Amino acid sequence: MGSVTDVPLVRKTSTTLSDGRALHYFDDTEPYLSGRATRALHDPRPPSPRAAPGGLRWDARTGDWVTIASARMDRTHLPGPGENPLAPSTALRSTEIPAHDYDVVVFENRFPALPRCEVICYSSDPAATVGSLPARRMRTVIEAWADRTAVLGAADGVEQVFCFENRGVETGVTLTHPHGQIYAYPFVPREAATVLRRAREHRTATGGNLLRERMLGELDAGTRVVASGRHWAAYVPHAARWPVEVEVAPLRDVPDLCALDDDERAELAFLYPELMARLDRYFSTADGAPIPLPYIAAWYQAPTAADDGDFRLHLRIMSMRRSPDKLKYLAGSESAMGAWINDAVPEEIAARLREAAR
Amino acid sequence: MGSVTDVPLVRKTSTTLSDGRALHYFDDTEPYLSGRATRALHDPRPPSPRAAPGGLRWDARTGDWVTIASARMDRTHLPGPGENPLAPSTALRSTEIPAHDYDVVVFENRFPALPRCEVICYSSDPAATVGSLPARRMRTVIEAWADRTAVLGAADGVEQVFCFENRGVETGVTLTHPHGQIYAYPFVPREAATVLRRAREHRTATGGNLLRERMLGELDAGTRVVASGRHWAAYVPHAARWPVEVEVAPLRDVPDLCALDDDERAELAFLYPELMARLDRYFSTADGAPIPLPYIAAWYQAPTAADDGDFRLHLRIMSMRRSPDKLKYLAGSESAMGAWINDAVPEEIAARLREAAR
Repeated sequence: MGSVTDVPLVRKTSTTLSDGRALHYFDDTEPYLSGRATRALHDPRPPSPRAAPGGLRWDARTGDWVTIASARMDRTHLPGPGENPLAPSTALRSTEIPAHDYDVVVFENRFPALPRCEVICYSSDPAATVGSLPARRMRTVIEAWADRTAVLGAADGVEQVFCFENRGVETGVTLTHPHGQIYAYPFVPREAATVLRRAREHRTATGGNLLRERMLGELDAGTRVVASGRHWAAYVPHAARWPVEVEVAPLRDVPDLCALDDDERAELAFLYPELMARLDRYFSTADGAPIPLPYIAAWYQAPTAADDGDFRLHLRIMSMRRSPDKLKYLAGSESAMGAWINDAVPEEIAARLREAAR
Repeated sequence: MGSVTDVPLVRKTSTTLSDGRALHYFDDTEPYLSGRATRALHDPRPPSPRAAPGGLRWDARTGDWVTIASARMDRTHLPGPGENPLAPSTALRSTEIPAHDYDVVVFENRFPALPRCEVICYSSDPAATVGSLPARRMRTVIEAWADRTAVLGAADGVEQVFCFENRGVETGVTLTHPHGQIYAYPFVPREAATVLRRAREHRTATGGNLLRERMLGELDAGTRVVASGRHWAAYVPHAARWPVEVEVAPLRDVPDLCALDDDERAELAFLYPELMARLDRYFSTADGAPIPLPYIAAWYQAPTAADDGDFRLHLRIMSMRRSPDKLKYLAGSESAMGAWINDAVPEEIAARLREAAR
């Protein structure tokens, strides 16, 4: 009927939805909102067949695995406010989350692209944004990311755990409730493989750590630094590809979110929402109203089998918005040839992000 | 004042626009529409400063070159019909093309991302589509592609010539006039580099040609074949990543468009518009009206320095349209991690493309 696990600072309560999918509450504040009442642990919906995850196909031309996931064609698309599946349940309506309120919750995606795809809700408030999360709640999100990275990363056949958020209809998001996703890939995806290969080449050639040198180089240059603390640095990379792009890296060599220590997690819990709030002030309308930025926020963690210390945790936040009324599209040069063209100058992106600090 | 060059089957006339950009007419039918009258060779517009091309930055994290092209922020965006810069000039209005009519024309882009970026207009008719081009005119487009590939590929510092077309506002196209683009990269872009590396690995491991075996494998399997002729095969790849995707390859080992012989060009001139017309019948509205498909059509040619015969010319046509009212977005998994998830089944895409034949 559910199990309670000690995770630092949060209470994790695990249960199972009526179709067999796992759900985990991460509660941070007493009286705990979820996990106490039976109704938080019991999904009253009738059991329904689970959608099959996609199948993998190998692309010999590029060496990539492609997931063919036809069942996802029918997934929920921009439901109205009365139909939000990520809101807490009420006496009248059962959603994906049986509890009547929650702090942070993670559960298996009903329309999985891969065998292990999870959804993480950052707040029970459908109108919340990550930029408005208090550090205490953001810390709970970080604890949940670290927990899922550890658990999924230890599962058979998982080679890469990817915590990310797509926000905005411009990224194809089908639900507006504040949430992210956690994918456990049964292969090392191309980007992680490329960064790992580059880091190993650099180690072989110079003996140094590519990603650490990159971060130190940005702090040293200073022109693209957006924020820096005792444990983290945020900067626009020298060769940024997106109209708005920020990279966030720990100062210490750390392979993944699980390896962050308490101080690092605490600082990140302040920095992450603060950066997101700046992004929401990046563009504004002619009369000064902020334009919430569509973005992809992506945590690059070491592949589960990469234990040589060359891969270093980093976050990239990327937006396709070029101006208040224009988007960047990934067309021929980017999508077909992999050659990125950025209309924005990285130093100017960084200056704008510094201005947007409060 | 302009030079006339013999290209098989077409007359090429080169001139210079008032700001110094090169323009080449490719005429195929007498009386030649352009290049005869002085006004076709003289741009009456006052000289204006040329926009600077972008600068390159090296991304050590991935090994990619990124182009930072801030001058492009001001480029022409969806002009009205009276302002189409790709239409022929009239007595009252001077466009990018001084001639009062033309068959096919190529000229340097006014807002270049790279030092060598060209625009190719497939027709002087702003409402034409590639799917409606007669084979004779398509042949002229092929001759123009081959000419530009040879000329640009021989220029100092050019490592890759890329002929492509982005169509539809969904791909970010800023002009609706039927046109494509030709980029001459001063580096080998990631996709071409990846395919070349894979082909060489395969040669080393097996002695065979990866891209030839891939094409023969598709013809042998048959389930994803869309069209095949005496010289070309068109198929949906086994691991297609896009909701609609077709690959077109010559049966003979050929590195690039210049190396195609007369018979191959002649067949391609029929096949290419025929496939494009099928794409325009792929989706239709509830009352049966066809929905023109947004797409990226991309020619993968051997990098200029790759003379070992492992790289084989192929075309990929990709669309982000998932259904009459839904698009695929390249979000976290694709854009950030390089792990593609396709909601469409390749065999079903191929079946639909076979049905769409007339």
